[in-house]
Amino acid sequence: MQRCLALANQGRGYTAPNPLVGCVIVYQDQVIGEGFHPKAGEPHAEVFALKSIKDDHRSLLNQSTLYVNLEPCNHYGRTPPCTEAILKSGIKKVVVGMIDPDPRVSGQGIQRLETAGIQVIVGIEEVACQVLNEAFIHRVRYQRPFGIFKYAMTLDGKIASSQGHSTWISGTPARAMVHQLRAESDAVIVGGNTVRRDNPHLTSHRSQGPNPLRVVMSRSLDLPRHSHLWTSSPAPTLVVTSSSLEHPLVPFLQNQGVDVVRLAPLTPTTVMEHLYQRGMMTVLWECGGTLGAAAIAEGMVQKIWAFIAPKLIGGQEAPSPVADMGLTKMTDALALERVQWQQVGDDILMQGYLPMETILSDTPASNLRNNQPTDPLGTLHFA
Amino acid sequence: MQRCLALANQGRGYTAPNPLVGCVIVYQDQVIGEGFHPKAGEPHAEVFALKSIKDDHRSLLNQSTLYVNLEPCNHYGRTPPCTEAILKSGIKKVVVGMIDPDPRVSGQGIQRLETAGIQVIVGIEEVACQVLNEAFIHRVRYQRPFGIFKYAMTLDGKIASSQGHSTWISGTPARAMVHQLRAESDAVIVGGNTVRRDNPHLTSHRSQGPNPLRVVMSRSLDLPRHSHLWTSSPAPTLVVTSSSLEHPLVPFLQNQGVDVVRLAPLTPTTVMEHLYQRGMMTVLWECGGTLGAAAIAEGMVQKIWAFIAPKLIGGQEAPSPVADMGLTKMTDALALERVQWQQVGDDILMQGYLPMETILSDTPASNLRNNQPTDPLGTLHFA
Repeated sequence: MQRCLALANQGRGYTAPNPLVGCVIVYQDQVIGEGFHPKAGEPHAEVFALKSIKDDHRSLLNQSTLYVNLEPCNHYGRTPPCTEAILKSGIKKVVVGMIDPDPRVSGQGIQRLETAGIQVIVGIEEVACQVLNEAFIHRVRYQRPFGIFKYAMTLDGKIASSQGHSTWISGTPARAMVHQLRAESDAVIVGGNTVRRDNPHLTSHRSQGPNPLRVVMSRSLDLPRHSHLWTSSPAPTLVVTSSSLEHPLVPFLQNQGVDVVRLAPLTPTTVMEHLYQRGMMTVLWECGGTLGAAAIAEGMVQKIWAFIAPKLIGGQEAPSPVADMGLTKMTDALALERVQWQQVGDDILMQGYLPMETILSDTPASNLRNNQPTDPLGTLHFA
Repeated sequence: MQRCLALANQGRGYTAPNPLVGCVIVYQDQVIGEGFHPKAGEPHAEVFALKSIKDDHRSLLNQSTLYVNLEPCNHYGRTPPCTEAILKSGIKKVVVGMIDPDPRVSGQGIQRLETAGIQVIVGIEEVACQVLNEAFIHRVRYQRPFGIFKYAMTLDGKIASSQGHSTWISGTPARAMVHQLRAESDAVIVGGNTVRRDNPHLTSHRSQGPNPLRVVMSRSLDLPRHSHLWTSSPAPTLVVTSSSLEHPLVPFLQNQGVDVVRLAPLTPTTVMEHLYQRGMMTVLWECGGTLGAAAIAEGMVQKIWAFIAPKLIGGQEAPSPVADMGLTKMTDALALERVQWQQVGDDILMQGYLPMETILSDTPASNLRNNQPTDPLGTLHFA
């Protein structure tokens, strides 16, 4: 099963909206076939694994075991069901890491196999299988992409100096890790302020893997005409705005190949809903503290990646990673779960999960969701 | 030598202004005597080690080696010189971890021993010996106590909520470590704001070891009459102020057993100079960001202890650990040296050293040092 997970992971960044799946076929402790799902629209892992078997090994299949980290599908999508491929192959034993998280189809693949007389074992390395596909599971369960909020701060909690200068807080190894994280994400979101102040590329740079869709949330469309996000074209860019599409910047952006979409109200939730519709699975928030706070408060962030650099910049007015979320008591602070620390170069990376179903009430952000009459984006200043 | 360091460390918190010293006497791989310096005014480690030798081992001394982490003294202070005690004992070989950092006496002890025909080896485990006595070395070299700035912050860089609520950021193991750190410090400094807002005890609580002198820096003497710092009496308290001692609070404080001293100007530097005069070696800054920034900018902080708790509170207005130090570019940030990270309960403790001789120019704090005509404490707001 560990080998399945390693194989599955090779598809990371390419498979959305599909899960990461690896498959290994074993005859008497010998691997005779393996494969993984490389990309949405291409065959599933089981099919690749079965195809990889040498002709002179095919006769062994009815004495072999198929391992797969996720329950084989039993429905016709862009490809035929994997259960049928398994049945046809003659395999008599299947070991499944975890069942399909979609309650509408969950268990049906296993049932189909068992009905056909195949021995099925379920729940091997289940937690590792769930972590591998946490974004897919979140997407299926909540009809939203999985949100990661990433930031880098100094040891005194600043993401820039009081003058807004922020290059660079973390070291080269940490920045390389962020490029890799982008390659494994389907979209990266920033606010208009980040575009105006930092003029970022938001690409995976030299990392292996694809570039994410670069998403700019801008209420006002008060964006610079010169930005790496539209003048350099290694990756697609989407601007989401609550402004009218009659705005003069819109044809300019479209002419640069930038997609412009109007969403009203423009909130972290409506943007994530839009990205869900586009089939996105993992979305990286690389925004400043105001938009970050709103995204957390609306439950659009599931995981935190915080890099901490051992340096001091100072400044009570220097920006912090998370702006107001309406929490007034330290005892109300959001305690992260399943926290992991690791050293990355000179920096520390802390990763942790927000408590499930974090949606804060009585915050500007939650007011957005209730569609209150005030102009919430005016309050949030993220555009 | 490792045994010397472990013995020496038993005096931590008690020896100021003297160094931590441990001594071991070895005859053919067998320890026949050991001791450490327990407290200023009491005999030095070498004397305790020699005293600890059993009568039937005394004849072995001229074939034994004496190990000590710091060069034996060669001058009459409150106790006679250790070199004389060593010479009298008959020992013929001495291993010294490091020479005395005081340039006025450095090397003289070793010279005295060598002149008398004793073999002396210097510089064994030298770095470990220097780290053990870093506070003593700093005190001797710069005529100032060694400053440690300790704070606890959330993962989003806040030392309190936007409403000022701060109990508790870090967990029980981290707080126990702070109590131990206080026990090992000679003084703990806070500003008036911390007294007014948090009403701290600043004691070592249940830790082993003594309580530090609790020091409050208050320009205005606008301090509450009810504070654990004067109504509970497990530890002495000193209030330093630039106000006139005619202030009505002064007799009240003195009546509670609090020492009140006027220092003008009242700055981190003048306070540290005063504490040096009192013989202090290690001083712990447990203040808010404004006073902390001033102490760093004036070079009164040598080491940072930062606890980071894996929780998010949010709030651009929520206080940060370090206020303005006049640094505008991220590239100017103070990069800590010899950084160490460790997990403490659910939290992370980062320890690191400020670059040597950190004194920032063009900051309110450095203006203080130049005695500029503006009222610097009015700018700093730490009282």
